[in-house]
Amino acid sequence: MPPVMKQDGRLVVVGGVAAGMSAASRARRLRPDIEIVVLEQGNDVSYGACSLPYYISGVISDRGDLIRYDAEFFRRERRIDVRLGARATRVDPRGRAVAFRSADGPEKTLDYDALVLATGARPVRLPIPGSDLPGVFALRTLDDGDAVRRFLGDRAVERATVVGAGYIGLEMAEALAVRGASVTLLELLPTVLSTYDPDMSAIVERELLDRGIILHKETRVDAFEPRDEEPRVGYVVASGRRFAADLVLVSAGVRPATELASAAGIELGRTGAIRVDRRQVTSEPTVLAAGDCAESPHVVTGRSTWIPLGTTANKHGRIAGENAVGGNVRFGGVAGTNATKVFELEVAQTGLSTAAAGEAAIFADSVKISSTSRSHSYPGAAPLAVKLVFEKQSGRVLGAQIVGREGAAKRVDTVAAALHAGMTVAELAEIDMSYAPPFSPVWDPVLIAASQALKKL
Amino acid sequence: MPPVMKQDGRLVVVGGVAAGMSAASRARRLRPDIEIVVLEQGNDVSYGACSLPYYISGVISDRGDLIRYDAEFFRRERRIDVRLGARATRVDPRGRAVAFRSADGPEKTLDYDALVLATGARPVRLPIPGSDLPGVFALRTLDDGDAVRRFLGDRAVERATVVGAGYIGLEMAEALAVRGASVTLLELLPTVLSTYDPDMSAIVERELLDRGIILHKETRVDAFEPRDEEPRVGYVVASGRRFAADLVLVSAGVRPATELASAAGIELGRTGAIRVDRRQVTSEPTVLAAGDCAESPHVVTGRSTWIPLGTTANKHGRIAGENAVGGNVRFGGVAGTNATKVFELEVAQTGLSTAAAGEAAIFADSVKISSTSRSHSYPGAAPLAVKLVFEKQSGRVLGAQIVGREGAAKRVDTVAAALHAGMTVAELAEIDMSYAPPFSPVWDPVLIAASQALKKL
Repeated sequence: MPPVMKQDGRLVVVGGVAAGMSAASRARRLRPDIEIVVLEQGNDVSYGACSLPYYISGVISDRGDLIRYDAEFFRRERRIDVRLGARATRVDPRGRAVAFRSADGPEKTLDYDALVLATGARPVRLPIPGSDLPGVFALRTLDDGDAVRRFLGDRAVERATVVGAGYIGLEMAEALAVRGASVTLLELLPTVLSTYDPDMSAIVERELLDRGIILHKETRVDAFEPRDEEPRVGYVVASGRRFAADLVLVSAGVRPATELASAAGIELGRTGAIRVDRRQVTSEPTVLAAGDCAESPHVVTGRSTWIPLGTTANKHGRIAGENAVGGNVRFGGVAGTNATKVFELEVAQTGLSTAAAGEAAIFADSVKISSTSRSHSYPGAAPLAVKLVFEKQSGRVLGAQIVGREGAAKRVDTVAAALHAGMTVAELAEIDMSYAPPFSPVWDPVLIAASQALKKL
Repeated sequence: MPPVMKQDGRLVVVGGVAAGMSAASRARRLRPDIEIVVLEQGNDVSYGACSLPYYISGVISDRGDLIRYDAEFFRRERRIDVRLGARATRVDPRGRAVAFRSADGPEKTLDYDALVLATGARPVRLPIPGSDLPGVFALRTLDDGDAVRRFLGDRAVERATVVGAGYIGLEMAEALAVRGASVTLLELLPTVLSTYDPDMSAIVERELLDRGIILHKETRVDAFEPRDEEPRVGYVVASGRRFAADLVLVSAGVRPATELASAAGIELGRTGAIRVDRRQVTSEPTVLAAGDCAESPHVVTGRSTWIPLGTTANKHGRIAGENAVGGNVRFGGVAGTNATKVFELEVAQTGLSTAAAGEAAIFADSVKISSTSRSHSYPGAAPLAVKLVFEKQSGRVLGAQIVGREGAAKRVDTVAAALHAGMTVAELAEIDMSYAPPFSPVWDPVLIAASQALKKL
């Protein structure tokens, strides 16, 4: 059960990005009386990390646009004691205390009545030579974004290499291409966007190639090397080849930041992230966890899963903030819904891919259909591919992937709703979806896919 | 129960637009053996009636683009005996026969084993002087569209008047403005788009005014008058005023075409459309009805309703076609989902408005929120207004209306899915919706509305 927050008690939140500031804000709204402290190791709170590629490309030019509310706003308007540059070093759940350090100052301690861990995730750092070279970047925080942008501003970057073709890798490949670089994209696996089925990610690969991205798959990066005597990156050595690179962006995945929780004896789950119940409470009753450091129940498999996304972080934060101060609300689970723009493509997914269904030991079948984003006769109608994954016996919808020039991201939400409702493909095929020639064919592509799926049952 | 179709039996379908051709095609797919005859009184089958305003504006320039498949295609590829210009005149359910007349030819009779009525709807003709004047048009069939287009091609139309501000009226006001006319829009009711709540249709009214449409509400049209001696329309007399008009488009609603059914003793429902069960079977076991002439069960109210739309017509047709030849499938009901483009606005709706909830004796509450179509920092983010209507006691979602420059039509489908699933606002607020800065704020506007609604329960 969540903790009971006494009158004038203290809530401490570790981490001040999406989940942390959502938790603090929610707690404040419910409890004007308590003290709320946020310990954020970085220099900014509440920024839109998902917008960083657009900040680097220049599509979003103003740094201030990434920050919805700054620390001063939270201090002034919400009476949240935001401490920037404050790194939590230790949690003592029994003593209800958290130790932290500001810059190089001495370790201090804060007692708490409830603690929310919103420590996030951090990029996987490749354990290879040259990872420390200037010009090799990861992209996680606003500071990271500033560093890349500064680097691009200081020198000509003719050749850039992106390591890892997940959605951040693809967005960064685009951003660097927009900045005028010739971009090489290296991926360890046989496909880009590995949460998608290969027949769908193939459409994305074609778009990358059409836009001049040099893509090497099944390629392992072995080292980063300086060029000549310059103390910065000049080459990427990968699968026996050398790629010239003025800048390297490593987006080889993220891992949950769980050291603090782990050292405090708080249980981690099978996924490596912090195990929480539906109320975001960890194995320690006064400690809650939210955002990219925590697991979530999956609405399709029912299992605990770890899918770090900003949407989930915000929801987690709100629930943790409420329950930390005496509330009792439950998280509805994740469907793994995601969307990304890859040059002129919209790419979106919800639920399980065929491969993910297999991993969950669900006997799945799928259909893939091609339709259009608008009525075929309406100008601007663009091809739209929909893949629908469903359980072979029951017909239960398991997931969808949609790729096209427009109309993918929000169409996938209809299938996400179907997943939350536990619908079958027959039920999905019945949904009364909107139609007007500028927005859809009379049979929405999702309905066409569901109808096709029905024939395979 | 649906009829049993004997070997080499005959299915007759009356009406060859959306519902009729869907029924015929579905029947053919299931039963290669039977004879299928379609009697269509017009000159075309299977055209996209919803695209007619875009054909008139010239956005869709090629008439052929409106016709997915022509009569010859159905004859040749699907062995469907399509008879154009064939007007059904009488149905004898006991004798299982339908009489029809081709042009001025003699009445002929066809026996049938099953009959599908897909007679559609027809525009309300105002019972006022001058309705017959050249230059006064309705817009229902492709022939109507051709007539308007021909009229516009033959003469300068400086001033056009549209009577009725439903979605066809708005689309035609836009089409005529695109063709260069000064457009006056006359509406009997106090708002445009009367299925929307007034606070949402007000956004649409502002768009109309901003685009130069002259809008007169609460205005009753009394007569159409010729100008001088010319035998065509010159003025519209309405609520005591005279509006000069070179062309008048009357879009004052449609009524189901039920004369044939009615004369045959087939029951009509409370709405005036043909009463059918979930299998599209009428009160006569060998007669089915589909499309704009038939009622549908509403997924929110559970009541029979009449909402004539192309999407429903296609679904009805498919079900009627299957059941007419021995199948046993059921229609999932309608949510009244609709979308329309009004100049640069996307306008979409599903389920009940506040007023419609009142008419259904449901105690409803609502929230209206303003958000953006994309992340606030991403270029092109446009205001998006979401109104969510829900049952006050249970929190059950009743409907939504969404208006904005982009992102309305397919977002409303997520709420449509919630209506089919019978979700509460709490459940809607839990849906894992997609997020990426180019496509949505991190809290999708629909989620924001659902969260706000939760606070009012």
